[in-house]
Amino acid sequence: MCEGFVLKVVEDLSKIGRTSEGGSNRLGFSKSDIEAREYILNKIKELGLTSRIDGFGNIIARYDGGSKELAAVATGSHIDTVPNGGHYDGILGVAVSLAAIKSIKEEGVALNRPVELIVFQLEESSRFGHATMGSKVMVGRDVLSKFKEAKDKEGNTLIDVLSENGLDFNKLGESKRSTDEFHSFVEVHIDQSRDLLDADKPIGVVEAISAPIRYKINIVGEAAHSGATKITDRKDALVAAAELILAVRNLALAYAEKNVIATVGDVKVYPGAMNVVPGRTEVSLDLRGSIKGFRDEASELIEDECMKIATRNSVEIEMNKISDEDPVPMDAVISSTIINAAQKLGIESINVVSGAGHDAMNMTEITRAGMIFVRNTNGMSHTPEEMVDTEDIKLLYKVLRETLVDLATQ
Amino acid sequence: MCEGFVLKVVEDLSKIGRTSEGGSNRLGFSKSDIEAREYILNKIKELGLTSRIDGFGNIIARYDGGSKELAAVATGSHIDTVPNGGHYDGILGVAVSLAAIKSIKEEGVALNRPVELIVFQLEESSRFGHATMGSKVMVGRDVLSKFKEAKDKEGNTLIDVLSENGLDFNKLGESKRSTDEFHSFVEVHIDQSRDLLDADKPIGVVEAISAPIRYKINIVGEAAHSGATKITDRKDALVAAAELILAVRNLALAYAEKNVIATVGDVKVYPGAMNVVPGRTEVSLDLRGSIKGFRDEASELIEDECMKIATRNSVEIEMNKISDEDPVPMDAVISSTIINAAQKLGIESINVVSGAGHDAMNMTEITRAGMIFVRNTNGMSHTPEEMVDTEDIKLLYKVLRETLVDLATQ
Repeated sequence: MCEGFVLKVVEDLSKIGRTSEGGSNRLGFSKSDIEAREYILNKIKELGLTSRIDGFGNIIARYDGGSKELAAVATGSHIDTVPNGGHYDGILGVAVSLAAIKSIKEEGVALNRPVELIVFQLEESSRFGHATMGSKVMVGRDVLSKFKEAKDKEGNTLIDVLSENGLDFNKLGESKRSTDEFHSFVEVHIDQSRDLLDADKPIGVVEAISAPIRYKINIVGEAAHSGATKITDRKDALVAAAELILAVRNLALAYAEKNVIATVGDVKVYPGAMNVVPGRTEVSLDLRGSIKGFRDEASELIEDECMKIATRNSVEIEMNKISDEDPVPMDAVISSTIINAAQKLGIESINVVSGAGHDAMNMTEITRAGMIFVRNTNGMSHTPEEMVDTEDIKLLYKVLRETLVDLATQ
Repeated sequence: MCEGFVLKVVEDLSKIGRTSEGGSNRLGFSKSDIEAREYILNKIKELGLTSRIDGFGNIIARYDGGSKELAAVATGSHIDTVPNGGHYDGILGVAVSLAAIKSIKEEGVALNRPVELIVFQLEESSRFGHATMGSKVMVGRDVLSKFKEAKDKEGNTLIDVLSENGLDFNKLGESKRSTDEFHSFVEVHIDQSRDLLDADKPIGVVEAISAPIRYKINIVGEAAHSGATKITDRKDALVAAAELILAVRNLALAYAEKNVIATVGDVKVYPGAMNVVPGRTEVSLDLRGSIKGFRDEASELIEDECMKIATRNSVEIEMNKISDEDPVPMDAVISSTIINAAQKLGIESINVVSGAGHDAMNMTEITRAGMIFVRNTNGMSHTPEEMVDTEDIKLLYKVLRETLVDLATQ
């Protein structure tokens, strides 16, 4: 069994960039990320796979198990983290993918197609404010004008960071890969929600990845003396914001069955003084759904509600939609393949929706893509508490291996 | 008539520290405040009054109309402003008081007692974070240990600012005045609410000054991924804050008839990111009332409500009471004197409650104190829009003059 190998890789990687709070800091292209990349490149070499690094730093390794001429079955994830991130997000996917390829190769399983491992660079948005950057470059998404402006908090530009790593921003177009190169792509990942935990199932087959509509909402009332202004005479921009926050919560409750989720993540209050009725507030709203119709319906309801809140509180509400991406369904054939693999192995799985974004979302632009989630025993992610049981890792490994073999023998 | 004199003083003072937005900046002991103080000292000299400056910079002028041995009737207000403040808060009171004394003196009205004009220093909290500082020093309130630490935003300590103005912080105790020196104190001020405007009356007789209970409330939930965390699994510290904000608003509506007013002036959200469920919020609550019983009842209801909100949202709420001052009733005899003066002159008045604090509040500790409010034609204060009609200024002047004559002939 390969779980020993998986656990060792996860453990080794988790020590790189370890924080005093028990998490790991491996922002993309940081010193610890580069150390982790060297570790993975060494593992790839030990397994006897060929490998290359594309113009953005994505690591691409290959086991030519079948005909080199046929399109490859790809699998993989990422090894960068959020600040003080957990020890499964990303690296578990890389470790399990490596383990599956190792076993297929060492056992000499007969394949028709090559199997690829991809370690995407800069999946987390923590360093440059953009998520899944490596896969966006790989699929040739029109993002280079945006990426050109990208800077981290220390003011280092992406252009300079690439250059320090021997990569040329102006040649990123050459890293785009074509549809012909891929048969399919399968990503495995820790569940970042409590879905599998609550359903008491080890494996989730991702039906769709939710995409956010994001608003910056500006509420303008009138600042006034808190002691001298009657409650009925106020145009309180914070009371209006509070009504909006609860309307968003109630909408999310009403639409929970439709896989819509909504969050107010921030409110800024002006002038923000103990003795002044708030004159203006800025509210950040993130609205996601796996089904565009339901999500857009919820977004219209929130916009209507804002108008009512504005009238009721004698304030003005301006809604600025700062992003509006479409939800991404995973490929039905790949999902069936995963479900069949699990059934064949007697492993229970359920269909789930991913609230968080993943590289698989972008890979759908050039190939059929699917995702396998594994149960998170704490239901928490992006924190050191993130956890997966060893037994579940074994099951995940088996399902991925079976899926890859099925796809690579097509 | 003296309204020409009042309007001239108000106009001259309002030009000192004029801002591009049409307001005035005269923070206590700023360059423009010192210029305004010189202006007032010259006016006092022109009127032939004696004057002195106490150890905190309070200006004390005197008309010895009656026996010098008897306790004085005092009147006055302040000339410092909030940043970009209006042209009536404070200076109208000083100008009308000066005008009333001028008229009493020039007409040779027979008095038994001296009449004093007091121009309090640092009434506004804008510079050092403490309000009505000059009157607190004058009544000998136990504040020196707090004032010792006071700094403005540029980091200048009160101690240094006093010293630059030839005043010695260590001698502030000598500025305390005794009960024996005063017969009574009357302050006139622009209404900072819409009370008189809505009641369509020019004059308000202040029954009581509300005092705030202030809380810094810390709400601790759990930060989580906004896309991957189900609405029912969240411990959202901002949803809890929103419930609290609306509970405060509803309480203020329910207690409006009982002169209780409540405001959430600020919320800070941590981590405050678009894609993170808020893990912690800090809420500022200001709760005022003119009747201690009702205000304290409202405060207990809010504390109870916080416990319910905490349970309902699976968060922890810690309420830190950072101030709890008692509401201050004005003296009934002084209020009757003002009401009688208005009636005698055929001027309509109503009883009002001051939501904002005033120096008269502190003066109750050493003498009988009352306040006269004049209608604010815009209902706004601490902004350049603050406004009083000339006709109302005439009525205010008449009521104060009559009140001072009545008190000073006792």
